[in-house]
Amino acid sequence: MPVIDELTRSLGDAVLTGSRIAERHRSDASLTGRHLPKAVIRPRDVAEVAAALKICNDHRQSVVPQGGMTGLAGGANPGVRDIVISLERLSGIEEIDAAAGTITVLAGTPLEVAQRAAEDAGYLLPIDLGARGSCQVGGNLATNAGGIRVIGHGVARDNLLGLEVVLADGTVLSSLNKMVKNNTGYDLRQFFIGSEGTLGIITRAVLRLRPLPAGRLTALCALDAYPGVVDLLKRAQKALSGVSAFEAMWESYFRFNCEAEGQHFFETPPAFAVILEQDIRGHDGEGEEFEAFLGQALQDGLIADALIAQSEKESRAFWRVREGHAMDRLPSLVNLDISLPIGEIGRFADECGEALSARVPIAHVSFFGHVGDSNLHIAFSLPGTNDETLHEVDAIVYTLVGRYRGSISAEHGIGVLKRDFLDRSRSPAELEVMRRIKKALDPNGILNPGKVLG
Amino acid sequence: MPVIDELTRSLGDAVLTGSRIAERHRSDASLTGRHLPKAVIRPRDVAEVAAALKICNDHRQSVVPQGGMTGLAGGANPGVRDIVISLERLSGIEEIDAAAGTITVLAGTPLEVAQRAAEDAGYLLPIDLGARGSCQVGGNLATNAGGIRVIGHGVARDNLLGLEVVLADGTVLSSLNKMVKNNTGYDLRQFFIGSEGTLGIITRAVLRLRPLPAGRLTALCALDAYPGVVDLLKRAQKALSGVSAFEAMWESYFRFNCEAEGQHFFETPPAFAVILEQDIRGHDGEGEEFEAFLGQALQDGLIADALIAQSEKESRAFWRVREGHAMDRLPSLVNLDISLPIGEIGRFADECGEALSARVPIAHVSFFGHVGDSNLHIAFSLPGTNDETLHEVDAIVYTLVGRYRGSISAEHGIGVLKRDFLDRSRSPAELEVMRRIKKALDPNGILNPGKVLG
Ligand SMILES: Cc1cc2nc3c(=O)[nH]c(=O)nc-3n(C[C@H](O)[C@H](O)[C@H](O)COP(=O)(O)OP(=O)(O)OC[C@H]3O[C@@H](n4cnc5c(N)ncnc54)[C@H](O)[C@@H]3O)c2cc1C
Ligand SMILES: Cc1cc2nc3c(=O)[nH]c(=O)nc-3n(C[C@H](O)[C@H](O)[C@H](O)COP(=O)(O)OP(=O)(O)OC[C@H]3O[C@@H](n4cnc5c(N)ncnc54)[C@H](O)[C@@H]3O)c2cc1C
Repeated sequence: MPVIDELTRSLGDAVLTGSRIAERHRSDASLTGRHLPKAVIRPRDVAEVAAALKICNDHRQSVVPQGGMTGLAGGANPGVRDIVISLERLSGIEEIDAAAGTITVLAGTPLEVAQRAAEDAGYLLPIDLGARGSCQVGGNLATNAGGIRVIGHGVARDNLLGLEVVLADGTVLSSLNKMVKNNTGYDLRQFFIGSEGTLGIITRAVLRLRPLPAGRLTALCALDAYPGVVDLLKRAQKALSGVSAFEAMWESYFRFNCEAEGQHFFETPPAFAVILEQDIRGHDGEGEEFEAFLGQALQDGLIADALIAQSEKESRAFWRVREGHAMDRLPSLVNLDISLPIGEIGRFADECGEALSARVPIAHVSFFGHVGDSNLHIAFSLPGTNDETLHEVDAIVYTLVGRYRGSISAEHGIGVLKRDFLDRSRSPAELEVMRRIKKALDPNGILNPGKVLG
Repeated sequence: MPVIDELTRSLGDAVLTGSRIAERHRSDASLTGRHLPKAVIRPRDVAEVAAALKICNDHRQSVVPQGGMTGLAGGANPGVRDIVISLERLSGIEEIDAAAGTITVLAGTPLEVAQRAAEDAGYLLPIDLGARGSCQVGGNLATNAGGIRVIGHGVARDNLLGLEVVLADGTVLSSLNKMVKNNTGYDLRQFFIGSEGTLGIITRAVLRLRPLPAGRLTALCALDAYPGVVDLLKRAQKALSGVSAFEAMWESYFRFNCEAEGQHFFETPPAFAVILEQDIRGHDGEGEEFEAFLGQALQDGLIADALIAQSEKESRAFWRVREGHAMDRLPSLVNLDISLPIGEIGRFADECGEALSARVPIAHVSFFGHVGDSNLHIAFSLPGTNDETLHEVDAIVYTLVGRYRGSISAEHGIGVLKRDFLDRSRSPAELEVMRRIKKALDPNGILNPGKVLG
C-alpha cells in the first residue's frame, strides 16, 4: 500500500501494521469497536503528527485519532481501512507558569499526570472525571469533557487557554495563548473543542489552573420532591461560596446502591438524595456556616434530613453510593447521558420512566446526575437486549429529550453511537453549518470520517 | 437602486435612506467613522433580519451590523456603499428561567436593561462594562466583551448559554440552549462570539445568571514592585473566595488621577496601587477575614500599605481614581488595550514605556489594567498627533506585544483600527483558517467586509 510505504519511509518505526497492532486500538470504553485499523501511527512529536497527516491527506487516507480510549461514544473506534494516529507517546508536562496560573501539556498526557503536576505546584487543575488515570488531556478537549466538578469551574472548554492543533493537511495551527482575555479575530481554539477528532488533531494545550482549596465539606441530604432539589441548589449557590458538587440521586438509584454498599443512611429511603460539596479556604467558621445552612434548610422544610461527613471516610461512603459501581453487575446495563433545563429534569424523569416501562421490559430504571450543571444520567438493565431494542430505547429517550429542548449528549459526545439521533438536538440549519465547517477545515474528509456527522 | 427597492418592498418603513439616516450611524465610540451608509434597516423582529439579509445576499450587498455603537475598534463604522442593519428595535427581555438560572434577551437589549431585569429576579448578570447604558447584549457577544469583573465570572463568552444568529444568506441558526453541558456536535455558538459581525447577525441570546452577592469588600493597596502585584493576586485568590476585581495602577497613572480627583490616599505615591474586591455572601466574619488577609500581607512585607473602604462612598473614591476620567482632558489621548501573560506585564510595561519615549514625544505614559485577567491598558497623550505618528506608536507597542506572545486586543476587538496589526498576534496559518471559516459562512463576503480580516 503506497500510503503505508510513504508513512514508513517518513516515520520509521512509529508506524505499526499487522500483528504489531495492539488490541487496545480496537475500541474505546463503549466496547462497541469491532475492527483493528490497517496501521497505527504513534508520533513522537508534533512534527511527526504533521508529517503523517500530510501524507494521509495527499492519499485521501482516512485517519482516526486515538487518545486514552476511555470515550463512551465510539468516537475513537477505527474501521479496517482507517489509519489510527495514537497520541500516547506525545505525553509530558512542558511548563507550569505560576504567575499566569497555567500548565502547558502535550495532548497525550494522561489527565491524572497533569492534575498531579498542578497539585505539586500548589494549584488545582479542575478538569476531573472517573477515567482520569487513562484519559488524555487531548481526548478531554476533543470531547469537551465534563464530570462532577463542572458546577465549580466549568467544562473542559472553560479551562482551556491555549491550543495547538494539526489540521488535516498537516498545517500546525498554534494558539498557545496564556491570557484570559484575547480578542484577536475568530477564536479558533473553540472550533476544535468537542469536535471529537473530526476537525484536527490536538497536540498541545495550555490549561488554566485555580487555587488549591484548603479542604472540602460534604453533606448527604434527603428530599421529598424534585422542586426541592432545585431550591436547595439555588440556595446553596447563593449562601455558600465554592459549591463544587451537587449530585442528585432518584429513589431507585439511591436505594439500589445503598443496599449494594451495605449503607443505611436514612430511616426511610428518600425520594431524592443529594450530595452537596463545598470547597473551603481554611478560615475559621466555614464548617459552622455549612452546618447552619443545612440547619436552616431543615427548619424551612426544604430538606427532610441531612448528614454531614465527619471524615474523609464518611464522605467516600456517600460518593461510593453515587458512583454506583454495583450497577455494573446488572445484566446488559445501558447508561445514557443527557442534559435538560434544570427546572424540567424532574418532570422529564417521570415521563421518561413511564415511556420506557410502557415499551420495553426494563429492570432498575434509575436516574441520577450532576443536576447542578443540567446533566442527567439514566441507567437501566435491559436483559435479553439486542441492537434493535437498544435502538428503540435510544429513540424513546432522545425523542423525548428533543421535545424538552434538551441535549442528547451532555458530556460524552456523539461519536458513532449517537450520530443517528443528532437531529433530535440539532436543527437542519445547524447540521448544515457543521458540514460547511467540516468541509472548510478538512476538505478531503480524512479526519475521523463518519463520526459526529453522517 | 434595485436592492433598496426590494428591501423597501419587503420591509417597508424599517428601511431608512437619505436624510432619514441619523448621525449616530456614522461612527462607534472610537469616533473614527467618516461616512453614513446608503441605507439603514431597523428590523422589528428576527424574520425581518432574515429577510433583509437574504435580499442583501442575493444582491451581493455589503451589510454592517450596528449595536449600541460603543465599540472602540471601528467595527460598526459603515462605508458609503454599505447598508447598516441596526439592532436597536430588536430589544426586550423574553424570559427569566429562575430554575435554570438563565435570561433570554433580544440582541438589541441594552446591557443595563438586562442587568436590571436579572437583579429584579434576584440574580447577577455578570457581564459588565462602563458602556453598560448604551451597549447592547448582541454587541457584547459580537465583541466578546470583557470588563472589570472578568476575574470573577469570565468574559461574555463564558456567560453565554444559547444563541440565535442569522447567517449571511438569511438562514436563522437557532441554538437557544439553556444547559451548561451540551456536547452535540460542533458548538456553533462559539463561532459567532467575538466575530464582530463578520459571520452572522446575533438576534437572541440565553445568558447565564449567578447568585447576587450580599455585598462587596474593597481595599486599596500600595506595593513597591510588580512581582508583589502578582503575589498579592495569587494569595488573594487562594485565601478569599469571590475575588471579583483586581485592578493595578502604575505610579504615573495613580498619581495623575489622585491629583485630579483631589485624593491623597498614601503618604508617598506607591510604585503600584491595587484595588482588590471580594464579593461576599453575608456571613458573619467575612469583613474580619478580609482585614486579616490584608494584615498578613502587610506583616509579610508584601504590601506597603492598605486602605479598606468603610463605606460605599470610600469605595467609589478608589474606583474614581481607577476609572481615570481626568485623563480624558489630556490632549490627543491614546488608549491601547492589550493582554500579556500575567507574570510578564511588569517587564513589558517598563520596556514599552522606554520604547515609546525613545521614539515619540509622549506625555503621561500610563499603565493600568485588569491585571487579574491579564489585561493591560496603556494611556498617553500625543500632542500634535497625526495618523502617521499614531500608526508609528501602534506599531511600536503591538510589535513588542508580539514579542511577548501577548494579544494586541484583550477586549476591544480588531474592527478596522487594529486590522493591520493582527499578524502581530496571529500566525499566517491562523489567519488563513479564519479566512476559510469566513468563506464557509459568508461565501459572498457581504457581512461587515474589511473588518477583522483584510
Ligand atoms: C469510568 C469512566 C468515567 C467517565 N466519566 C466521564 C465524565 O464524568 N465526564 C465526561 O465528560 N466523560 C466521562 N467519561 C468518558 C471519557 O472518559 C471522556 O470522553 C474523555 O474525555 C475521553 O478521553 P480519551 O483520551 O480517552 O479519548 P478517546 O476515547 O481516545 O477519544 C475520544 C474522542 O476524541 C478524539 N480524540 C482523542 N484524542 C484526540 C486528540 N489529541 N486530538 C483530536 N481528537 C482526539 C477521538 O478520535 C474520539 O473521537 C468517562 C469514561 C469512563 C470509562
Ligand atoms: C465608556 C466605555 C467603556 C467601555 N468599557 C469596555 C470594557 O470594559 N470592556 C470591553 O470589552 N469593552 C468596553 N468598551 C467597548 C464596547 O462597549 C464593547 O465593545 C461593547 O461590547 C460593544 O457593544 P455595542 O452594542 O456598542 O456594539 P457596536 O459598537 O455597535 O458594535 C461592535 C461590533 O459588533 C458588531 N455587532 C454589534 N451588534 C451585533 C449583532 N447583534 N450581531 C452581530 N454583530 C454585531 C458590530 O458590527 C461591530 O463590529 C467600552 C466602551 C466605552 C465607550
